[in-house]
Amino acid sequence: MSQTPQIVLSGLRPTGRVHLGNYFGAVRNWVRLQETYRCYYFVADWHALTSDYADPSLIHQSTFEAVADWIAAGLDPKKCSIFLQSEVKEHAELHLLLSMTTPLPWLERVPTFKDQQEKLEDKDLNTYGFLGYPLLQTADIIVYRANFVPVGEDQASHLELSREIVRRFNNFYGDVFPEPQALFTESPKVPGLDGQKMSKSYRNTIPLTASADEVRALVMTMFTDPNRIRRKDPGNPDICNLFQFHKLFSDAETIERVDRECRTAQIGCVDDKKLLAEIIIEQLRPIRARREEIDRDPSIVWETLREGNRAARERAGETLESVRKAMKIEYPELR
Amino acid sequence: MSQTPQIVLSGLRPTGRVHLGNYFGAVRNWVRLQETYRCYYFVADWHALTSDYADPSLIHQSTFEAVADWIAAGLDPKKCSIFLQSEVKEHAELHLLLSMTTPLPWLERVPTFKDQQEKLEDKDLNTYGFLGYPLLQTADIIVYRANFVPVGEDQASHLELSREIVRRFNNFYGDVFPEPQALFTESPKVPGLDGQKMSKSYRNTIPLTASADEVRALVMTMFTDPNRIRRKDPGNPDICNLFQFHKLFSDAETIERVDRECRTAQIGCVDDKKLLAEIIIEQLRPIRARREEIDRDPSIVWETLREGNRAARERAGETLESVRKAMKIEYPELR
Repeated sequence: MSQTPQIVLSGLRPTGRVHLGNYFGAVRNWVRLQETYRCYYFVADWHALTSDYADPSLIHQSTFEAVADWIAAGLDPKKCSIFLQSEVKEHAELHLLLSMTTPLPWLERVPTFKDQQEKLEDKDLNTYGFLGYPLLQTADIIVYRANFVPVGEDQASHLELSREIVRRFNNFYGDVFPEPQALFTESPKVPGLDGQKMSKSYRNTIPLTASADEVRALVMTMFTDPNRIRRKDPGNPDICNLFQFHKLFSDAETIERVDRECRTAQIGCVDDKKLLAEIIIEQLRPIRARREEIDRDPSIVWETLREGNRAARERAGETLESVRKAMKIEYPELR
Repeated sequence: MSQTPQIVLSGLRPTGRVHLGNYFGAVRNWVRLQETYRCYYFVADWHALTSDYADPSLIHQSTFEAVADWIAAGLDPKKCSIFLQSEVKEHAELHLLLSMTTPLPWLERVPTFKDQQEKLEDKDLNTYGFLGYPLLQTADIIVYRANFVPVGEDQASHLELSREIVRRFNNFYGDVFPEPQALFTESPKVPGLDGQKMSKSYRNTIPLTASADEVRALVMTMFTDPNRIRRKDPGNPDICNLFQFHKLFSDAETIERVDRECRTAQIGCVDDKKLLAEIIIEQLRPIRARREEIDRDPSIVWETLREGNRAARERAGETLESVRKAMKIEYPELR
């Protein structure tokens, strides 16, 4: 007996080239999930506007980069739908409809609302749209009647809010939406070159499709054990940023050897960097090769999006029909 | 030399049968404006949800009533476009895009936000959508790049907010929208049967297309000069609710005569009510007749809306293309 496949929804804001933080935090899991679930993955260009409204000039190029890198990383347009948020207007319509039933305090108390305002203090984020960010996220999810959303632990509270919004909606209008469940996936923390979280805004990223020379140059700037001053000082891998990357990229034997040789000063930081760089280059080779193919034929990206948008619109359109029916704002006489 | 006609935009929430307050306050002016301007008039069904989300069951019927009464009152689908807000998705998309640039305090300080919450205390209006009401109104207006909005004096502050939102948007992205101007139109205050403002929520209305018997029955319940107790007491038309209706419906001669005969107790309140009822019935006869025609063929309403929706979508679609281009979130590769 065949079962309806469970639906997974996930998206990322277009912020430029996909970096290793994005890859290990999300995209690598997406690639796995496409084998088991009916997956919808999207470029959240409207979300990008919530903070970048004053200068949206990079969104178009970043959208291309994101989709090109996702495909390079292993997303297969035959197995999943990759689409662009702003091309599926149902997100906006559902966001508006949900706004009617969503209590203002639910949004005001979302921790990231105040946090981000303080963090990104060079941007004026005290806008109606920024407050509504988690509501748009909710619309993004439930417009596909998604069963699962892959989340890291820090995003679980956002999803809890989405579930509350769904319960309130269903309570008013009947069971239109399933409550989306968190799909906790393995997503190791990826440090940036400087040891902070890897993030575009900290300028400490390694692009997923960096060239060999780029990888070598970036790895050379990596922070290591700050207490190891001279070559002959023994190092401590536990507090070495570089060593975290070995854990992500190297095999068990190499990890064990580097650990030992660092503690005994047999391997120096520069040698270790050279070693790590070549391992990363080797590991990312297939991804980089696919990306090069795409760059030779960029229409792959746009064709993927065209098809993904179509599939997304179809599913979202069905949902909105149910929503309008449930809310009694449908007009069969106009069809 | 022919000039591009100036665009007028106006709408009303579907609240059931159109009453005399709606007619003198808005619809009568709409009928005049269609002769001079390119007019878009709409049923604001999404707006109805901002306060009636808990029970939207009357919206469909009220939409029919509104459009039927507007046509009966003289709106000519050949001269203006009559459409349904929820059928033109561009309102929702523009509302979302505007939300990104609209400062939260601009919406929080709109006087009606707190006022209405207190007034309609049986409804929970502390929602994200209710706060965004004036923003949706702004989208409604500027998605047609309207030049004029007919307003009573009490709505001028809402339009001022729309103009602020437009200025901020144009400032970020270039001159996409004209600043909509208020078109101050003659709109006499229409008292209800009890002397308060005529309003559905006060249950003191006279429907525009009331039958003769209905008009007679309703006028009989009208408040008159409270100090005139007995038939032989002289009355004071200045504080008589009934007399306000003479000013709306009767000719100068009748008004003068009633004024005189009331002050000298020549005419009693009941006689006056009978007189007024017949005048109202006579004045509204052509409107009622047209409404009866529509009731014999309700497809007139739906056909009007279908054509109006099409025209509205065309204009709104052009606007959104300009908006996406200006905000740099357009993807010609996907066309």
